[in-house]
Amino acid sequence: MELYDLLEEYEKTHEKVLEEKIKNALLPYKDGAIGIAQINPVIGDLKYNAKKIVEYINFAQNIGLETVIFPELALMGYPIEDVIDRHPIIVEENIKWLKEIAKITTKTTALVGFVEPNSKSGKEYFNSVAVLECGKIKEIVRKSLLPTYCEFNDCRYIEPSHIAGSHSGDTLCCFDNSVSKDSAKASLINGKKYAITICEDCWNDREFFKNNNLYRSNPLDELKKDNPDVFINCSASPSRNKKEQLKRNMFSFLAKKYETPFVYVNQVGAVDNISFDGASRVYDKNGELIARLKAFEEQFLIVNIDKKLGKIYEMFNDEPNSSKTFSLNYEDDLERTYRTIIQGIRDYFGKNGFKRAVLGLSGGLDSTVSAVLLADALSSKNVYGISMPSTLTSQTSKSDAKQLADNLGINYTEIPVKNVVSSVDNELQPLFKEIENNWNCRYKQSFTMDNIQARARAVFLWSVSNEFEACIPIATSDKSELYMGYATINGDMSGGFAPIADVTKTKLFALARWLNKNRKVKNAIPESVILKRPSAELAINPKTGKALLAEEALMPYEFLDEIIWRVENKKENYYDMLDSKFIYEKEHPISKEQKSEWLDKFYSRMSKALYKWSIVPPSVIVDSYSINKNEYRQPITTSRINYKRSKESEIEGLVKSF
Amino acid sequence: MELYDLLEEYEKTHEKVLEEKIKNALLPYKDGAIGIAQINPVIGDLKYNAKKIVEYINFAQNIGLETVIFPELALMGYPIEDVIDRHPIIVEENIKWLKEIAKITTKTTALVGFVEPNSKSGKEYFNSVAVLECGKIKEIVRKSLLPTYCEFNDCRYIEPSHIAGSHSGDTLCCFDNSVSKDSAKASLINGKKYAITICEDCWNDREFFKNNNLYRSNPLDELKKDNPDVFINCSASPSRNKKEQLKRNMFSFLAKKYETPFVYVNQVGAVDNISFDGASRVYDKNGELIARLKAFEEQFLIVNIDKKLGKIYEMFNDEPNSSKTFSLNYEDDLERTYRTIIQGIRDYFGKNGFKRAVLGLSGGLDSTVSAVLLADALSSKNVYGISMPSTLTSQTSKSDAKQLADNLGINYTEIPVKNVVSSVDNELQPLFKEIENNWNCRYKQSFTMDNIQARARAVFLWSVSNEFEACIPIATSDKSELYMGYATINGDMSGGFAPIADVTKTKLFALARWLNKNRKVKNAIPESVILKRPSAELAINPKTGKALLAEEALMPYEFLDEIIWRVENKKENYYDMLDSKFIYEKEHPISKEQKSEWLDKFYSRMSKALYKWSIVPPSVIVDSYSINKNEYRQPITTSRINYKRSKESEIEGLVKSF
Repeated sequence: MELYDLLEEYEKTHEKVLEEKIKNALLPYKDGAIGIAQINPVIGDLKYNAKKIVEYINFAQNIGLETVIFPELALMGYPIEDVIDRHPIIVEENIKWLKEIAKITTKTTALVGFVEPNSKSGKEYFNSVAVLECGKIKEIVRKSLLPTYCEFNDCRYIEPSHIAGSHSGDTLCCFDNSVSKDSAKASLINGKKYAITICEDCWNDREFFKNNNLYRSNPLDELKKDNPDVFINCSASPSRNKKEQLKRNMFSFLAKKYETPFVYVNQVGAVDNISFDGASRVYDKNGELIARLKAFEEQFLIVNIDKKLGKIYEMFNDEPNSSKTFSLNYEDDLERTYRTIIQGIRDYFGKNGFKRAVLGLSGGLDSTVSAVLLADALSSKNVYGISMPSTLTSQTSKSDAKQLADNLGINYTEIPVKNVVSSVDNELQPLFKEIENNWNCRYKQSFTMDNIQARARAVFLWSVSNEFEACIPIATSDKSELYMGYATINGDMSGGFAPIADVTKTKLFALARWLNKNRKVKNAIPESVILKRPSAELAINPKTGKALLAEEALMPYEFLDEIIWRVENKKENYYDMLDSKFIYEKEHPISKEQKSEWLDKFYSRMSKALYKWSIVPPSVIVDSYSINKNEYRQPITTSRINYKRSKESEIEGLVKSF
Repeated sequence: MELYDLLEEYEKTHEKVLEEKIKNALLPYKDGAIGIAQINPVIGDLKYNAKKIVEYINFAQNIGLETVIFPELALMGYPIEDVIDRHPIIVEENIKWLKEIAKITTKTTALVGFVEPNSKSGKEYFNSVAVLECGKIKEIVRKSLLPTYCEFNDCRYIEPSHIAGSHSGDTLCCFDNSVSKDSAKASLINGKKYAITICEDCWNDREFFKNNNLYRSNPLDELKKDNPDVFINCSASPSRNKKEQLKRNMFSFLAKKYETPFVYVNQVGAVDNISFDGASRVYDKNGELIARLKAFEEQFLIVNIDKKLGKIYEMFNDEPNSSKTFSLNYEDDLERTYRTIIQGIRDYFGKNGFKRAVLGLSGGLDSTVSAVLLADALSSKNVYGISMPSTLTSQTSKSDAKQLADNLGINYTEIPVKNVVSSVDNELQPLFKEIENNWNCRYKQSFTMDNIQARARAVFLWSVSNEFEACIPIATSDKSELYMGYATINGDMSGGFAPIADVTKTKLFALARWLNKNRKVKNAIPESVILKRPSAELAINPKTGKALLAEEALMPYEFLDEIIWRVENKKENYYDMLDSKFIYEKEHPISKEQKSEWLDKFYSRMSKALYKWSIVPPSVIVDSYSINKNEYRQPITTSRINYKRSKESEIEGLVKSF
């Protein structure tokens, strides 16, 4: 495995002297050595991405590879979204870069993704891959199947290719996409037939998806007719819970089905809310894995498919056949969750020019886990934790916050919020009296004062951000609370980034334990943070005389998080859930009335929370499904939806009565 | 025109006695009287929408109409977006309602839009129209062309129909959408052939769009082969600048081209950011307009196409052939702008259960125009203007705010912000010192104190919203400032609704003058508000010693607004604009250096403003293009895009040097 050690060393140092050693180690891989360049492009930063591409092509040529393959839209970065529509100049520029990159391919063939203008009717652009060879753009492949669901919006700005496979380089910017009965062609590269597809093009197997496939055509079927030696898929596919199993099963299935090796080259890195995991891979024609790159890291790997030479890097502990069931044991997804978020933070900060984060440390679970993730992603010295106790903040909360900061080695300070709160209160009381005279609709009980505490804290954090360079404040809302709207606008849900907005509370508890066990510094999170029951410490529960617990205001988190999972993953409705036994119920038998009360509360609070979802800062999509605005669109003006079923007879009666 | 007076009266009163009179007035319209029901549905509120539909069907039957036509997705409301995917139960429910509504159609045929499950592969749903007749679902039409650009996302959740026209009602929920060479069929309704299409289905004429059409198939061509007597288009098409001309030209063109009358039935009302304008209409086979319903109002109109009987309601003063040029004279679009926003506010509040608005009145243009619009949309008594002066607030600003409130008759009060600001400042100064010890990156000059003023104001407004029922605070940012990021997060850009976020500053000035001239109460806006140059009154300009003017921080608004227009409407780039003569330049000759400095500032500020765009509250899309997140998606992580051009030789040099 000398080659792979050398490649890892080269990845770190880029030392010229290593090239010679790699060349020697590469001898057993000839002929047919393919380089997989799993890169992390910056959306729209052509110079940066081109530099990365050119460096890898030069490296491939220096060590004598036949081919080097880059991910989908490698030159532009994926997803570029509507910006190519409003600012066409960046597409013009990407064509110029592509042409110049082509010129340097004197020895190695390179497959490079780019945005191609469409000169005919239809959308303005194709999502294309160029085959660069002998200094020229030899051939071009265009994406046929356009994912438009969840985080994907390809149909918004991309025209689908109606003819899969490779077309002459002469068609650059003037491809005629009319219907044609010509069969799809593979690219002939160094005597081998490469059937090239782009991402979604290979996600439409009717058999594998049990007739739930989304598109009518199947580019793989079309390309198989040309008897390719290998399938290549240039991709940009994000990390998700259970996605690794899906990929593993599907690519192996496809390789076996077509009796053709399959090379999958995925983008790595994050863009706003989307975290691409890399983990590119190669299957032989029997569906056996022969190589897999690292997840969440840029990497260059070399394989020889015929000789079955490659290296399989380890992946997270992930059950190969876990079915769609819910468990409060998140163990098999915690490392992936951690790395997805770490990459999300690191790239959002790095790619946008931020360096530092400031967050409120309450001693509660949300801010605690957020602080650990930030420290790991940005390094401790770049994180500032500020404790902003109010009169309701317990002594434990304060000492836990301090203890955490010490354990993490992040910056820490304390600033009381009570003076500002009382100064706001002083102004507000007479104001409220005056308004009450005109508007006879003052609430008997309100959350006004609770929210002022949260908002005063956010004023401090945004002020730090305004006063210190490249520093942004962190929103610490979690997914369970966002579903319930249990977060303060301009308060705890405000910030420049929201690291845990797609992590439910019960999973956060599991993640906290996992962090304590698996980080280099063990037990950084004080045990009391994990043991105490969550409270915003903003209001008193009149029944207990103590700070109101979140579960008292909402419902048990074990129950809430299972509702969320069922709605997102199984599309269950009120009745489905009423009829199913929840994990929570196994230990805490509850009446049907109690259960339906909680379900009602879920739907009613969710409807009122829609506005809040629309203003959550960028976060990271982590779960299989989320409410992140990059992936889920529900108009706020659906607050009057009735999520329950009506009987036909009821409806009939109503229709007659109208 | 007695019939139309009676219909208008019926619209207001729904009095049974009018039905008899209408029946008599209707005699000349027999046979072939068609009712157009331009309704304002509430997304997902099936009971509410069904009631509206049933009432109009009953009315149509009582007065003896042959047919009544509703807009696209009338039963569900358009656009329902991803919610049908995550909560399939509401689609099940809409099918139940449809079946019950069908039962009441004993005399009149009704065309009702609904969401239909797709039982085969592809997306889960069709966007369908049912032909309800004789108590049954007689036929079903499914949308073929799916708009997926700007505010439209149909491809996300709708499967396109590959066979245009009407199919048997037996296909409900089990339509086989396989490719078929069968020709498209019109519906036979009362002896006439109705060629029914849904919205985008008729927006693809290659000739009209000069080869810039988006789709390969054209349902109108397919349906024309069946020799229809009339084309029906059930639609949900939003209001936009210049859209009225486009519709006028296109429908007239299509009617003439196919020598077939054209009935266009549009939804009215707003959903979040999208304001549908109604203005349904009928063209005869010569392309002559024979009926047009009101804009921005629910209405029921009756036409007889063969007899050319109908009424044409007046539209806004809108040049029929105005070309794509920019003018600082917005005169021809101000009434439409006003009504688009008024409807946007009214429906966002009404459909979501809000009644009252509270906003800061600074005496500046943005809050002033916002207050007028709110007063008109919600009625004066439901609006609270709060003046929150700081030490920088001028006396004129304060008196202008008071004067405006008096003129509008809205509630008004004053509350100083300085105590809270200084209380925040007291806490911050030692905090900043402490942080500075750890982080050596404090800005020499910052906007921290300016922003604290804006944020303290927002704390007051959100507190009022928390304390009083059904009340939301208003964000008063305008489009020019949002482009420049010249707005404070959690400050003036925070709120529950942003009425003027798609109106540029120069257009706001024009709108202010228009309001003073055209509202019932003239000159409600103090002249000095319109005369003074905009300032946030948050900072002092050291050069003048006075409050910093917005134009000093940015650039002249006349210049900025023209850049925005050119980028949005003409997709011009830096060089296009450098080479064009701006209107501003005609009166103020500027050097090329000055011009390129302003252009550079535009791109650099815009890149930094992307995050702010993502958290703007719901607003109303007004212009032809906007940056509203419902219509425009640019990843925040594109801040490193270079919007300028590079020379080939430069790129070549760089590629060689990498």
